[in-house]
Amino acid sequence: MSEFSTKDTLLTSVQSPLENSGNKITVVGVGSVGMACAFSILNMGISNDIALVDCVPDKLQGEMLDLQHGSFFIESAKIVASTDYAVTAGSRICIVTAGVRQKEGESRLNLVQRNVDIMKQIIPQLVKYSPNTILLIVSNPVDILTHIAWKISGLPKTRVIGSGTNLDSSRYRFLMSERLGIAPACCHGWIIGEHGDSSVAVWSGVNVAGVRLQELILSLGSKHRSEEWAELHKKVVDGAYEVIKLKGYTSWAIGLSVSALCKAILKNARTIHAVSVLVQGFHDIKEEVFLSLPAVLGENGLTDVIVQPLEDFEKAKLHKSAQIISEVLKGVKM
Amino acid sequence: MSEFSTKDTLLTSVQSPLENSGNKITVVGVGSVGMACAFSILNMGISNDIALVDCVPDKLQGEMLDLQHGSFFIESAKIVASTDYAVTAGSRICIVTAGVRQKEGESRLNLVQRNVDIMKQIIPQLVKYSPNTILLIVSNPVDILTHIAWKISGLPKTRVIGSGTNLDSSRYRFLMSERLGIAPACCHGWIIGEHGDSSVAVWSGVNVAGVRLQELILSLGSKHRSEEWAELHKKVVDGAYEVIKLKGYTSWAIGLSVSALCKAILKNARTIHAVSVLVQGFHDIKEEVFLSLPAVLGENGLTDVIVQPLEDFEKAKLHKSAQIISEVLKGVKM
Amino acid sequence: MSEFSTKDTLLTSVQSPLENSGNKITVVGVGSVGMACAFSILNMGISNDIALVDCVPDKLQGEMLDLQHGSFFIESAKIVASTDYAVTAGSRICIVTAGVRQKEGESRLNLVQRNVDIMKQIIPQLVKYSPNTILLIVSNPVDILTHIAWKISGLPKTRVIGSGTNLDSSRYRFLMSERLGIAPACCHGWIIGEHGDSSVAVWSGVNVAGVRLQELILSLGSKHRSEEWAELHKKVVDGAYEVIKLKGYTSWAIGLSVSALCKAILKNARTIHAVSVLVQGFHDIKEEVFLSLPAVLGENGLTDVIVQPLEDFEKAKLHKSAQIISEVLKGVKM
Amino acid sequence: MSEFSTKDTLLTSVQSPLENSGNKITVVGVGSVGMACAFSILNMGISNDIALVDCVPDKLQGEMLDLQHGSFFIESAKIVASTDYAVTAGSRICIVTAGVRQKEGESRLNLVQRNVDIMKQIIPQLVKYSPNTILLIVSNPVDILTHIAWKISGLPKTRVIGSGTNLDSSRYRFLMSERLGIAPACCHGWIIGEHGDSSVAVWSGVNVAGVRLQELILSLGSKHRSEEWAELHKKVVDGAYEVIKLKGYTSWAIGLSVSALCKAILKNARTIHAVSVLVQGFHDIKEEVFLSLPAVLGENGLTDVIVQPLEDFEKAKLHKSAQIISEVLKGVKM
Repeated sequence: MSEFSTKDTLLTSVQSPLENSGNKITVVGVGSVGMACAFSILNMGISNDIALVDCVPDKLQGEMLDLQHGSFFIESAKIVASTDYAVTAGSRICIVTAGVRQKEGESRLNLVQRNVDIMKQIIPQLVKYSPNTILLIVSNPVDILTHIAWKISGLPKTRVIGSGTNLDSSRYRFLMSERLGIAPACCHGWIIGEHGDSSVAVWSGVNVAGVRLQELILSLGSKHRSEEWAELHKKVVDGAYEVIKLKGYTSWAIGLSVSALCKAILKNARTIHAVSVLVQGFHDIKEEVFLSLPAVLGENGLTDVIVQPLEDFEKAKLHKSAQIISEVLKGVKM
Repeated sequence: MSEFSTKDTLLTSVQSPLENSGNKITVVGVGSVGMACAFSILNMGISNDIALVDCVPDKLQGEMLDLQHGSFFIESAKIVASTDYAVTAGSRICIVTAGVRQKEGESRLNLVQRNVDIMKQIIPQLVKYSPNTILLIVSNPVDILTHIAWKISGLPKTRVIGSGTNLDSSRYRFLMSERLGIAPACCHGWIIGEHGDSSVAVWSGVNVAGVRLQELILSLGSKHRSEEWAELHKKVVDGAYEVIKLKGYTSWAIGLSVSALCKAILKNARTIHAVSVLVQGFHDIKEEVFLSLPAVLGENGLTDVIVQPLEDFEKAKLHKSAQIISEVLKGVKM
Repeated sequence: MSEFSTKDTLLTSVQSPLENSGNKITVVGVGSVGMACAFSILNMGISNDIALVDCVPDKLQGEMLDLQHGSFFIESAKIVASTDYAVTAGSRICIVTAGVRQKEGESRLNLVQRNVDIMKQIIPQLVKYSPNTILLIVSNPVDILTHIAWKISGLPKTRVIGSGTNLDSSRYRFLMSERLGIAPACCHGWIIGEHGDSSVAVWSGVNVAGVRLQELILSLGSKHRSEEWAELHKKVVDGAYEVIKLKGYTSWAIGLSVSALCKAILKNARTIHAVSVLVQGFHDIKEEVFLSLPAVLGENGLTDVIVQPLEDFEKAKLHKSAQIISEVLKGVKM
Repeated sequence: MSEFSTKDTLLTSVQSPLENSGNKITVVGVGSVGMACAFSILNMGISNDIALVDCVPDKLQGEMLDLQHGSFFIESAKIVASTDYAVTAGSRICIVTAGVRQKEGESRLNLVQRNVDIMKQIIPQLVKYSPNTILLIVSNPVDILTHIAWKISGLPKTRVIGSGTNLDSSRYRFLMSERLGIAPACCHGWIIGEHGDSSVAVWSGVNVAGVRLQELILSLGSKHRSEEWAELHKKVVDGAYEVIKLKGYTSWAIGLSVSALCKAILKNARTIHAVSVLVQGFHDIKEEVFLSLPAVLGENGLTDVIVQPLEDFEKAKLHKSAQIISEVLKGVKM
């Protein structure tokens, strides 16, 4: 009897099933950010084929099992995990959330170098097993690490994208929504540039149903109000710090932001998102750096960039970010 | 100009918007379980109206902000949070995930008593602000705490439900799925009884496309294999311990399990789930206790219970669980 | 044995299930438009509780059975149908698609009167069985019939909404999308006013990522292009005629448009849609007429109206529509 | 200025977008069945990339425009249509709904021959432009035409699938659901064999929560009831005729049935569906014919077949269907 198993008796195989679906997504790093990405992707049905990679095997195995135990509630999900990158083979998108945090007294450049060293371990492995993948970099400082990942990977610039200010823009739209009492989806505003303190809120683009708040406020004869609205941007920058102070880390919002980008890519959606791309040549930026601009995404990654009209001080901020990042990149050992 | 605000200029109000939607869900406890529930519910579009309650204000505020910052990516989500239960008013479902864990050297009864005391604080507040709500108890020991919540709440037994073995059943179906190479949704198996070590895997119910594995294995002339399959149940029981050992806690699977129950209720789905309900009178159970049985759920909570044919040893396990729980309940101070 | 049925043996009833969910939607008229609405609502999971009403019993029964036969593929859908409006009791939204078409040689006013007579049969029945419902009028001429439905119903103006130029706006955004090669969701443009030939495309509101096409084209020094873009509006107006010429009627696009409105309402979404509302007082309109403007929708129907800056010729078109409709309404026998 | 267009000014192209997504589905035949398939697929988000083909250009163009006009409401949908099969290039699935209906006085064999002739025009074109596609045959008589499509296509048997009794099974589960008052998803029953009058309802497989109705009814000592339940099958067979009599054709249920199959394939779901596959060798069937059996589907099409235990009369019906179909096939001119 030993030659029969229940499976062989129940099922008559006609051909072997495919190991991977055409919608496979890898998440590198199973910390709170990586897992929020994976959980959002699975819950939203963006992909049902997820590979997890991390260098801590116990935590990795635990997260995999916990997702698998719930896979009955997610349509036909397949979740695999390993410290060996072979498990990532054939991924359409690889999300990189791995990275270390600043130590006390550590210089910013030293932190960057440590995360660059981590990218040097991760990126070649991802490209080896999924040569046609799109890299979606989430680790911080995201603009620098996306640049590094691009260099290491040898992939075209269209297939290395940083999550950038997609999340900052979402925070801005939520804050608008809260003030106006309408859905964030109908509050249009774009945060571009460097993800973090020196990001730029494009004031001319802020509108509801095509009505520019800029004009509305000018029509009220009030410069003051305009500043009040511009201050929303400060709240966006402070938002991340506030969440970290309160709960110790950020997870849900960045997870949702990344799953939205994955959806745009896998669905060949041609939708516009503020993501970190090579900006040399846009807005008179001279440096070869990555910063966030509104970009059209599809199955082959980045297809188009939108150059919004900027005020002088907005443009100056972009230029300053480009210079600083360029300086940091010069100090990095590849 | 001070009498005008941007909002009033942009929007002409015709009537005030409704504060709460008709699909509001409260989550009590913003630990890893509570937040996995909330995040799954939002991502799956089961409800876009969530209230969070916890007694730790910083963590609570941080979790709320983190969800709010991502609300642009979730269709028109409204997320509120407070230590004051007034924020939960008008909830259709209240999910209770709060509770303490066993201290070293603490007796099981002592643990139960501490969690009962927590329920005594939570439940009356929930019922006060949402007298027509359905209570969905997730805190452990779930069968006991569901009973306690029922007693404290004064709600009919149809509106107090424990998440019970809904998750255990999902684990079982995943393990079947892994062995057979087909989707968990097509691997039918039910774990009933006490959530945890003494749960019961109903062997007669295990089937694929209506083909009972029991008969399939008997037809192979192999008692051994039958045991092999029954062993799957042991793996289910060990599953929770394994995840806790590896990552420190469970979150994703229980979150998915609970969001599936919320969907069944809010959609008036009339689907069947293994949840903890008052089982007195079923399977000759004499005690007034809550245990999991396959139950039909709709907008008014529990409507029907399904009594499956059980083998003698399966029934004996149910009876033993009922007796133990009944004993524990006698020792609880209400 | 006759006192036992399979059902009673299988299920032990604890309480009766609820007849209706809290998300019930009625569709009056099971022609191609009504059925496209119902099918879209069910497929998108906006509601799983649909009542169909029509005066032709055979067709009605056939459509109900055809949906029911597929209900296994839609999560727990409940579909009922009857020529008796009792079946609509407790609906949150009532969609009215019933109406007659123009006969050869029939005057427009005569057509209006015949459809008004139909509304006089339908609306009181809907309000009788669902006094708290929101009426969503789709029948043409939609601006006039929404007004009539409002008058007949006795409902507040916040709960009688016409599908209006929501579809025209969608057509405009699709045409933009086709020209620019980006997703319609990222092509922002609003068609307001009368649904049909005299609608208004609000040129100042047309933008992509907050970049106004108006300014972009002016910056190119080209008035010609501006006209080219304005011509898109002509294509929108011709769109409906073209589809009717080619396939005999329109169905899918209006079905999708209506299901999007239902979603906004049932989810208390606070999103903005171009729908037909009472516009007296907006844009200096004197007449008590319904026309489409960007409006915020939630569970209690209309909450806010957005008054966009209009060019003089745009405003003039609105005023002319208001006058014509007002004249027609005077000729209607109620 | 003529060298600038709005598009080039707004968007800076980095690379060309992909013409087709990796989820493209072709629908051949834009009658009520084909359009219900396409509309369900788009509404459910199963694919947002649809090509329509038909030999009647006006109707085809009208259906395409009508879907396109609503594409704003469907996430980033791309809809194309042509009488030229070049438009179908790169489809993952090709759904064939084209075919003629029986003329008065026409023999069944003559009808079959006319539809075979249509397949001879369609299938080679589909395979030419999408050599790796999966053919999903919906046209009737489906078991015969799936066989013919397989022969003409030269594709492996794993990639030619007939919609078969997937719909009949859904009808059966709805009727069970109606009698038991629980969701169709929880009413398990399988209709296999020939799609139509001689299909087989597998009595041993009918269960709720693993409780076999067969045993339940026997335990009531009632053979009569068993017949009552078996009669449900007669209602399934009559269901299609009833709908056709009442509304003139079937559309919604078959559309939902087909979109469910597409989902299983595109998601590599490994779920089980009753579909028409090559059954030679199963249940002692000698003939090379296609009939429906429970089959596991994934991205590479059919992977496994499940052989359920059948009663003698059930098996006899399968054999008879196989013989009749085999006879018909002999008479067909290829």
